[in-house]
Amino acid sequence: MSKPTPLSGFPELLPAQRVVEQQVIDTLRHTFELHGFAGIETRAVEPLDQLLRKGDTSKEVYLLRRLHEESAEGHAGLGLHFDLTVPFARYVLENAGKLDFPFRRWQIQRAWRGERPQEGRFREFTQADIDIVGRDALAFHHDIEVTRVMVDALTRLDFLPAFRLQVNNRKLIQGFYAGLGISADDGSTDEVMRLVDKLDKLPVDKVRDLLLQDAGLSVENADRVLELATIRSDDDGFVAAVRALGVEHELLDEGLEELAALVRGCADLVSDRVRVTADLSIARGLDYYTGTVFETRLDGYESMGSICSGGRYDALASDGRTTYPGVGISLGVSRVVVPLLARTGLTASRSVPSAVLVAVVDEDSRATSSAVAADLRHRDVPCEVAPDPAKFGKQIRYAERRGIPFVWFVQPDGTHQVKDIRSGEQVDADPATWAPPAADLRPSISTPGVEARSARTSTTDIINSEETP
Amino acid sequence: MSKPTPLSGFPELLPAQRVVEQQVIDTLRHTFELHGFAGIETRAVEPLDQLLRKGDTSKEVYLLRRLHEESAEGHAGLGLHFDLTVPFARYVLENAGKLDFPFRRWQIQRAWRGERPQEGRFREFTQADIDIVGRDALAFHHDIEVTRVMVDALTRLDFLPAFRLQVNNRKLIQGFYAGLGISADDGSTDEVMRLVDKLDKLPVDKVRDLLLQDAGLSVENADRVLELATIRSDDDGFVAAVRALGVEHELLDEGLEELAALVRGCADLVSDRVRVTADLSIARGLDYYTGTVFETRLDGYESMGSICSGGRYDALASDGRTTYPGVGISLGVSRVVVPLLARTGLTASRSVPSAVLVAVVDEDSRATSSAVAADLRHRDVPCEVAPDPAKFGKQIRYAERRGIPFVWFVQPDGTHQVKDIRSGEQVDADPATWAPPAADLRPSISTPGVEARSARTSTTDIINSEETP
Repeated sequence: MSKPTPLSGFPELLPAQRVVEQQVIDTLRHTFELHGFAGIETRAVEPLDQLLRKGDTSKEVYLLRRLHEESAEGHAGLGLHFDLTVPFARYVLENAGKLDFPFRRWQIQRAWRGERPQEGRFREFTQADIDIVGRDALAFHHDIEVTRVMVDALTRLDFLPAFRLQVNNRKLIQGFYAGLGISADDGSTDEVMRLVDKLDKLPVDKVRDLLLQDAGLSVENADRVLELATIRSDDDGFVAAVRALGVEHELLDEGLEELAALVRGCADLVSDRVRVTADLSIARGLDYYTGTVFETRLDGYESMGSICSGGRYDALASDGRTTYPGVGISLGVSRVVVPLLARTGLTASRSVPSAVLVAVVDEDSRATSSAVAADLRHRDVPCEVAPDPAKFGKQIRYAERRGIPFVWFVQPDGTHQVKDIRSGEQVDADPATWAPPAADLRPSISTPGVEARSARTSTTDIINSEETP
Repeated sequence: MSKPTPLSGFPELLPAQRVVEQQVIDTLRHTFELHGFAGIETRAVEPLDQLLRKGDTSKEVYLLRRLHEESAEGHAGLGLHFDLTVPFARYVLENAGKLDFPFRRWQIQRAWRGERPQEGRFREFTQADIDIVGRDALAFHHDIEVTRVMVDALTRLDFLPAFRLQVNNRKLIQGFYAGLGISADDGSTDEVMRLVDKLDKLPVDKVRDLLLQDAGLSVENADRVLELATIRSDDDGFVAAVRALGVEHELLDEGLEELAALVRGCADLVSDRVRVTADLSIARGLDYYTGTVFETRLDGYESMGSICSGGRYDALASDGRTTYPGVGISLGVSRVVVPLLARTGLTASRSVPSAVLVAVVDEDSRATSSAVAADLRHRDVPCEVAPDPAKFGKQIRYAERRGIPFVWFVQPDGTHQVKDIRSGEQVDADPATWAPPAADLRPSISTPGVEARSARTSTTDIINSEETP
């Protein structure tokens, strides 16, 4: 077999890189569990009719077929899931009688999409989802809860650049449009949101033209819609800015109240590294969600797009009789980790879990070295025994190449010494009691290439366009 | 959407069952890392030509096709991996220049096979593999190492029934056959091994007939072959039993020496729950492996077959210039966990990670309850806040239903109390210092249905058939 080459869109990591990804996943899981979220896994496949309910992703689904099956249809039309929301909604319906609601779950699994690979976009990728789902009803405070949990998780990933959670609310937007007389029923609301979403790619005048021509808005309504989309604030100041536009609607009131409660509910989490911004231009996803919407961007990595998105569904799942509302966020683990590894040289201090290499004097005394290793493992110190009784210098180089910080020697007189090969310090040690410093027990993560982000643009409290009346 | 039904062969677990599986996986990983194994993950897909190299499993491969792709061939012929060995061998070749050898890796991932589902056999399943791979050479002591690591891991799964690791060696069998004049070159060796493997299903006389008729053995050779297959011992006593059969060959000597070293190298791991047996009837897998072979059976669950198998490959991978020998074992995680859950009622003490439910007096004081939760989490105590300010009795029942052991109350005077709802004991507590007993921090696993296995059949040191000369 000749040397295989990587498959585009199916990233794989070297052992030291995988240490980084594993620590990310461990940290996420630890955080989610501290907040009482139960871990579940769903199967990788779903019936095709389930996967195709979100029409716009249908082309990206991978179908399964058994090799010697007569037809592709034969295997009950199974495909690989393209996210963790569709399978979770199905899991909730299937097991509703055995779950306790509100049900909090975390789920970290791979998903697959057949789309064209590009940076941060893969055909196979790992996602980390949290959702809270209720039966019939789910209180709004859970919207604040999932936001806080994900901010807590992202904050604990201390090698991440500073990040900004952008929040919006579909009720606010839809209520505002309704107050202007734009109808949700004939699809104009969705069309307007779709056009507003182009503001980060097209000049504002161009979007304004589209709102007039494609969506058929009046000049006044188009201006109001654009004014709304320029409002953002790091506190509940956006409420006054929206009120100043003079539009009134019950749904708008509800949306303003929810979004203000969300921003206030996260205020104590804001720091040098974390901003939570009400951003009324966030429109993507509004057609899926029914209330709160989240997106998250890493400072300096805006080209990655949103790394962590989600929101409120009033009907995550429904069997016709019972409806299960939910609120959740999904973090693109591969989407963040793979580009960070590539761009910043982020890596682990060692490629193996071993904190100690136990040297071997000769094959006859391998059992002695193995007994030392067993003693260390008994106290949860990861270690390995040298593969062959080479000269000690060679055994030390074996440790160095892997980043193992300590080498253990059994002396000819039966006493023991351990050497920190970074400092060269070698001391007497007892295998029954010695342990490395806590910081050396696990590989550490270092970020040689990450630029300091102190020169961040300062937060603009409220930015209004000059056209505001 | 009507209530979905499970897909046969694609098992999913309820939250409390998933706690069991997750603890199994955590324990395996912890053990593997204590022994210095690096964790890797490979992509789920491989090019079809890689997957079809092991001819006999080809029919079980799931092919991938994108929904709107013109032909099935279009997508470069990708299929889902059916084990973790094929992808690992490819990973080693692809990354050989960036890996340090000998390279120890653990890998716990799903795999897929389109075979007919039955108990312990699934279409989607989780496997836990460990392998040690060398470049050009790999010392035999690594065979002992992987065996010890897997026994260590299985031993730590304390809810598992007692188990028996059965070991054999292809060199021993092949050398014995060669000493009898049975040729490896014309395939007779493989044919004889295939027939010997039927001994657990067919009467010995029937197998003897097949050896004479199908494999063309002489009466004397057939008897010797059958005598060899009856030898087993829990120590290196099997060596004398084989020697007594009077067959001589260099490869036989090598195999006897290796197998004796393996059994002696594991002697100190034997306990009430663990047996390591040299079993010369183990033939399955011998055609893949080149030396050591392992199988593992759970006492009382023999119908499950081997839950954990592996062995030595002299060429796990090769690019024509360099050969990478390996030795490894694969544990069928789903294969063990899913039937044990179903048969024994094995379950977790709670369905959520939360050790504490913080009660809520009214919505206005939710922030007070959330602050208590934050304090507890700050000291790594998983907890959740009650979803609504119901009567305390109802909040306690909320905890009970999920198995959460403690409920926290903020009293009207601002002091705090915590109640162990199992004992009913309620005491004053300080959110800044209180922690539950260590045993309550994580859900515990209980095995209500597992029968005591004290009446196990005693170990027979060497069983020889009566025909031994």
